[in-house]
Order: sequence, then structure tokens, then C-alpha cells
Amino acid sequence: MAVTCITLIGVGLIGGSFALALRRGGYEGTIYGYGRSETALRRAVELGVIDHYSTDLADLVPASDLIVVATPVGTMAAIFADLQPFLRPDLLITDMGSTKLSVIAAARAAWGEIPARFVPGHPIAGKEQSGVEAAEATLFYQRKTILTPLEKTEPKALQQVSRLWQMAGAEVVKMAAAKHDEVLAATSHLPHLLAFTLVDTLAKLDDHDDIFRFAAGGFRDFTRIASSDPQMWHDITLSNRAALLQVVAQFQQQLTELSLAIERGDSEAVLTLYRHAKAERDSYIDRHGQI
Amino acid sequence: MAVTCITLIGVGLIGGSFALALRRGGYEGTIYGYGRSETALRRAVELGVIDHYSTDLADLVPASDLIVVATPVGTMAAIFADLQPFLRPDLLITDMGSTKLSVIAAARAAWGEIPARFVPGHPIAGKEQSGVEAAEATLFYQRKTILTPLEKTEPKALQQVSRLWQMAGAEVVKMAAAKHDEVLAATSHLPHLLAFTLVDTLAKLDDHDDIFRFAAGGFRDFTRIASSDPQMWHDITLSNRAALLQVVAQFQQQLTELSLAIERGDSEAVLTLYRHAKAERDSYIDRHGQI
Repeated sequence: MAVTCITLIGVGLIGGSFALALRRGGYEGTIYGYGRSETALRRAVELGVIDHYSTDLADLVPASDLIVVATPVGTMAAIFADLQPFLRPDLLITDMGSTKLSVIAAARAAWGEIPARFVPGHPIAGKEQSGVEAAEATLFYQRKTILTPLEKTEPKALQQVSRLWQMAGAEVVKMAAAKHDEVLAATSHLPHLLAFTLVDTLAKLDDHDDIFRFAAGGFRDFTRIASSDPQMWHDITLSNRAALLQVVAQFQQQLTELSLAIERGDSEAVLTLYRHAKAERDSYIDRHGQI
Repeated sequence: MAVTCITLIGVGLIGGSFALALRRGGYEGTIYGYGRSETALRRAVELGVIDHYSTDLADLVPASDLIVVATPVGTMAAIFADLQPFLRPDLLITDMGSTKLSVIAAARAAWGEIPARFVPGHPIAGKEQSGVEAAEATLFYQRKTILTPLEKTEPKALQQVSRLWQMAGAEVVKMAAAKHDEVLAATSHLPHLLAFTLVDTLAKLDDHDDIFRFAAGGFRDFTRIASSDPQMWHDITLSNRAALLQVVAQFQQQLTELSLAIERGDSEAVLTLYRHAKAERDSYIDRHGQI
């Protein structure tokens, strides 16, 4: 059965971009939007992101083949509970949450067992801006989307969700949910946590006005991600707590070792670490490109 | 006495850009280059960055009004010792080292006392690339250059160096050397150290290939500075050890507090920190611009 009617739960940057990307990729079905703010939903219709909207799931879900949950991970437990009365065996469901084990746990808690046509997913793309105004048809273009099907996920459901992501321009990668959470803790959640912590640390120094005044380009790039949505990153941080705390501890240990090397003036140790880091980053950029 | 002949010690990114920027700003005198590598010096002449070069200071310094030391801070002690026989009361000297207390200490060690016409300086500009090929006439344009004169620095010498920086397009700011080192430790040296440490930490994880494979744009920006010159950053790290270790300790404490908040699921503490960091960074960008 082809997907011809989609309900998007959460029409912000990610959900809105998915709708625009599907249209651009040739999707000709209907796209409904559901959310809390009628103003935002009306704006999404004006911008041509969705066809219709409602603030009542009963208006949308029974007519839909696919539900896409594109809200912050902290809200998913409540959304899944609201969806529960409308579940039916043929309904395809996916999400775009930044963590996967916590989303699967929330689905299990709300639905008793995970439906065979639920395909957890996460597009590795984004920007600091949020809201439907920031949505872009090319946000996922040539980016990876990770899908984390469960053992009992129906292969056909996985294939349908994969095809839609490909239509949206993304490269689909399949991965276990636990592995996803570990990888993302290291490459995305930890850098965000460090950027927030750095800005917070500097802002608390006595001479923080001077400090920000003399910050150069490197600082601006380094802290760009500290301008991301705090609520969303709060949700991600707490949802991926175990994997994140593990990699934070590894980082802390490495930083402590470096501090001790600096303190004892261990020129060789400092140089070795910096050289290794530069070599690794340069080789990563060579393999995966600058953007 | 006007500056009509400059010897540039170190014709890399920073020294080369200064020469190009002076020319662009209307400087019509001579610019000599001194360095270890004749190949690099010849290339600097070919590129029109310097007029002549020598690998012997005796050929250049006696004919010069101004010496600009633009080598990594780790090399300055040796350079100052080499300059010592050529010091004369009317010789204007400045440097472009990224740390200031250590450069002043190196000058004192090499010269016995600090000449009244030595004006320590540091342009807050740069990029990851190094070498004369990367030099740009606009590198310092509308960027700040910090000068850290000592109590006995001749006001006329400070004025002459300030004018040259203004000619190169920079905004000159005067600051105590200790204050400079504290400010730069926080805004520049600490972010570099964190970026090197992050890449190094991730590269040591078992599944580091996957980790780098799924790194998104935020990670690339965040770690861009980890592609900087390791030797230069090693020098800076050890030269500014005291100020850097202090701000590293403050960062570590903040990171530990955040980890503990995450561990106990303290939603409020995590959200407050992230909100504060975003507000501070956004207000800094409002005041000082995106670039």
C-alpha cells in the first residue's frame, strides 16, 4: 500500500523540512499537520509546507497512512499516549527524535508493545534556528538518516520509510538503537554539552565583558552550537543520559591528563595529543568532506 | 623618525599578512624577511610579500628601523638571543606572539632589561592554514590588535607601532600583558585545547570509524580549530600555562557539576545552564557581529 496521506506531528524545522523535501522529491499525496500552536500551523499552511492542519488527532490520524512524529524527544511520551487510541495494524509510524532508546521505551510504555509498523528514525541534519520558518527542502539532501528498526519491525514498513527518506534526498543507514545513541552521544551530544558549558563558564568569569569582546572567529565557530534550542538539547541530554555520561567521563579523563601534562611542562605529551587530533580530524575531513 | 625599513622575522601566515596589509594600507618603505628556510623566503619574494631576504640578521637589522617578530612563541627566546648583539636605542621592536607574559619574560632573559622601544603585541586574527602562501592583505582588517606596553615603554614607540597596525587595517587596543593572557586563555586557548581533546577522545573510542562517519555539521564547526598547527598550539599552551590551567579548572568544575545534574536527572539545572549559555552567546553575537 502506497503512502498517500501523511500526518506530521510537530511542524517545526525538522518536520517542516521533511514535508518540503518530500514535495521536492516528487511526493504527490496529502500532508496534514498537527501541533499545539494554531498560529504556527496556519503559518505552515501559508508557507506551503502542509496542506491542512488540525489540533485534534481524531481529524487526521484515521485518514492517514503514515504518522511522522517530529517533536522534541521530551514530548514523545505524551504524543505516543495521545496516539494510542488511533493505532491500527496497517498504520505506518516513524519518528525523527535525536535519541532512539528513549523513544522506543516511550513507545513501549504508551502502547504496551511496539507495533510492527513503527520504524524509529533520526536524520543527521539540522541548524540552530527552529520553527517552520526555518524549514528548507534541502535540509536532508545528501545527509544520512539513521533508522533503528527493532527485531519485530516489518521489513515492508522499514522499506516504506526508507523510500520516503530517499525521496527527501537522504542516504538511509540502518543501525541498532543502542549503537545510534552511543555514536550520537560522541559526535553530537557531547560537542553541544561542551559548547554550552564553555559559554556558561566564560560568562561566569569576573571580566566576562572583556572576554567576549576579544573573542575571535575560532571561538564563534566553536560555540555556534551553544546558540541551539536549550529545551531541545535539555531533552536530548536527559534522554541519552547513559551514553552521554560515559563519553563525558572519557572526555574529562583525557582533559585531566592533558592538564597534568601542561602542569608538569610535558612538551612531548602535549604535542603528541595535538598532532594526533589534527591528523584524525584532517583525515576525517579528507574522507567525508568539509560540509 | 618615520619607519621606512622593516625586518620581518618569520614570514609565515601572520608576518606575511602584516607585510601585505601594510602595503595595502599605503606603506611605501622596504620590507626585509628573515627566516630559517630559504625556500620559504624566496617564495615570499616571488609572492611580493617581502622585498629582500637573508638568513643572516647582520644583513638586515642594522639597516632597519623596526623589527617585527612573527614566529611561534616557543621560538622567541632563541630569536631574542640572536637579536641581542644588534640592539640599539633607536631600534623599534614589536612581536605578534599569542601570549604576552612569556614573550616579555623571554625578552628580559635575552636582553637583561626590556628596551624602551619594545612594544609587545598580538593581533586577534588567524586561520588554520599556515605559511606565507596563506597570507592575506585583509587578515587584520577590522580585527583587534592588542598591544601590551610596559611601564617604561616609550609613548612614541607605542604610537609608532599603533599607527602601523592601523595602517594594516586593525583596531588597536592597549591592555596589561597579564590581562591579555587571561582573556586569551579563556576565548582562544581553552577552546583550542577542548577541540583537540574532543577529537583525541573520540579517535580513541573503539568504534571511532563509525563515530566520525556520522559526525554532522555541528561537529565539523566545533572541531575546525583542531586542524590548527599543533606545534604553534603546543607553544601557546605551555607559554600561557598559568592562565590556561586556571580556566581549564573552572571549565572542568562546571562540566562536573553539569554531569552530576544529568546523572541525578536534574531537569531544571540542565535547562538553566543551557538557557544561560544560549542567552549569553546570542547577546555576544548581537553586540559583536557574526564574524
